[in-house]
Amino acid sequence: MPPSGSLQARFLEGDRRALARLITEVENGTEAGRAALRALYRRAGRARTIGITGPPGAGKSTLTNQFAKALRARGQTVGIIAVDPSSPYTQGAILGDRVRMQELSSDPEIFMRSLASRGALGGLSAATLDVIAVLDAFGKDTILIETVGAGQDEVEIAGAAQTTVLVNTPGSGDDIQAMKAGIMEIADVLAVNKADLPGADLLVSQLRALLSLLPDRAWTPPIVKLIATEEVGIDDLVTACDDHWEFLASSGRLREQREERARHQILTLARSQLLAGLMDDEGGGGRLDHLTRAVADGELDPHTAAREWIDQEALA
Amino acid sequence: MPPSGSLQARFLEGDRRALARLITEVENGTEAGRAALRALYRRAGRARTIGITGPPGAGKSTLTNQFAKALRARGQTVGIIAVDPSSPYTQGAILGDRVRMQELSSDPEIFMRSLASRGALGGLSAATLDVIAVLDAFGKDTILIETVGAGQDEVEIAGAAQTTVLVNTPGSGDDIQAMKAGIMEIADVLAVNKADLPGADLLVSQLRALLSLLPDRAWTPPIVKLIATEEVGIDDLVTACDDHWEFLASSGRLREQREERARHQILTLARSQLLAGLMDDEGGGGRLDHLTRAVADGELDPHTAAREWIDQEALA
Repeated sequence: MPPSGSLQARFLEGDRRALARLITEVENGTEAGRAALRALYRRAGRARTIGITGPPGAGKSTLTNQFAKALRARGQTVGIIAVDPSSPYTQGAILGDRVRMQELSSDPEIFMRSLASRGALGGLSAATLDVIAVLDAFGKDTILIETVGAGQDEVEIAGAAQTTVLVNTPGSGDDIQAMKAGIMEIADVLAVNKADLPGADLLVSQLRALLSLLPDRAWTPPIVKLIATEEVGIDDLVTACDDHWEFLASSGRLREQREERARHQILTLARSQLLAGLMDDEGGGGRLDHLTRAVADGELDPHTAAREWIDQEALA
Repeated sequence: MPPSGSLQARFLEGDRRALARLITEVENGTEAGRAALRALYRRAGRARTIGITGPPGAGKSTLTNQFAKALRARGQTVGIIAVDPSSPYTQGAILGDRVRMQELSSDPEIFMRSLASRGALGGLSAATLDVIAVLDAFGKDTILIETVGAGQDEVEIAGAAQTTVLVNTPGSGDDIQAMKAGIMEIADVLAVNKADLPGADLLVSQLRALLSLLPDRAWTPPIVKLIATEEVGIDDLVTACDDHWEFLASSGRLREQREERARHQILTLARSQLLAGLMDDEGGGGRLDHLTRAVADGELDPHTAAREWIDQEALA
């Protein structure tokens, strides 16, 4: 048992401020954060995770908020992680948090947090999985992972959830249509938001056509029409996600997913740790400077330089 | 000298098919590709690289094509790399290539190639830098790196160029506006495309306002209005990029950039090589399976599992 009054103890008592603080520690990769993850990891593994992705302007934030409220109406506790890899350079995530939290703040059982990128070596995807584990260990029944952009990062992060909802809107541009084709394969549920706009039925038939091009799978993604701003269709979305959850549990896919994610996480973290080890070695920095100049001068290609650096460190 | 008739020899003679083949070898990380990079790297370092990024629908492809034609009119040879991290699951990049190449095919001095993601461990960013080096060694004067999406990956890839052009259009949605704020800081030139649409002047003043919020820098990004589909304003864009190049060269920033990029590349490649080394070790796979199950069962957190795996391999 953690000492009474400690951060972990308050976390286990359900203190929201302790939860917020622990997420910050985990996100920043501090020793306290690592220790908490080690201690709390056994308590995780019970929550459902649902990823929500789609192009900018599809109304993902509104949809996520409504989704959370619908889950609360069913008696579930909810965590929301809004991941924004597209604004690594500003504090936009924090501003967004405030607006979102005002909207949701009437309900203490919805906990919302934004994550923005922490530079190349940290890895936003790794941080997101850690924060999921913390919310899970805190006892949240369902965790919604909303991504703000539409690139590969966002798709990967949302796709790490057990169920992935791809949000589309009628009348998106050609580029966005092309993107949809690319990410259709990871969608478990297809949401057509702003379904009162012209072209909604056309979009539904386009999505059906795209689905028919994919290889046969045990699960066929349902297409759900909704108007998130008016709370229309949200119940259908919840039902579609419930159906997918039943499929995962009954088919054994849930366990497979869990192992795939665990393996991927170990590989990603091992890579970071190995590199951190190289950087920490005394003298490693100086040797790296030398190789950096050789590459910048065109005397050495970067692959060979990386190999030489590793070999030099192994001998050092 | 490479043996006469070999791939490298034909490459050095300026054979476009040899160039295309070598890019494929490099992209796939084959031994032939690595050997070619080692041999050719000294020939690289002369080309200018210009990244073109911005939200979907901003008209980046059209702008890139017109940019390439304008450079050709100035007697330069041009390489185009279109990077599409957002469609890792389809062959969209290849289809796109065919359409683009038809448009540009009248000019043999424009070489165009699409790159799509190769999964998590390879790294699209690393592949892009390798392909830049190959085009550079081939003798291309300017290499345009166009990114298709708008997430962090795309921004990073385009930002690895010496000059980064951020393309915006009037009347984009709120999400896109938020994104712009995030990536303003890496932009060296701000292009306002579709400048005949309503709201173009508003966008220009918004961009000016955003610029004024950034910390003072030695270079202030110029704002260029253009209509790429009608070839209006392209010359101004070329001039703005030329001005930025002059700034880089005269301020010593060019050399700094080169070293920063080299260091980043060495670190990224070292990380991949270290991990590949772990995976190749006999028995390493089995130990990884064991740890994967422990994490999936919630017995172990993934950070600890990664550490244990590395330690076990070091002893094996």
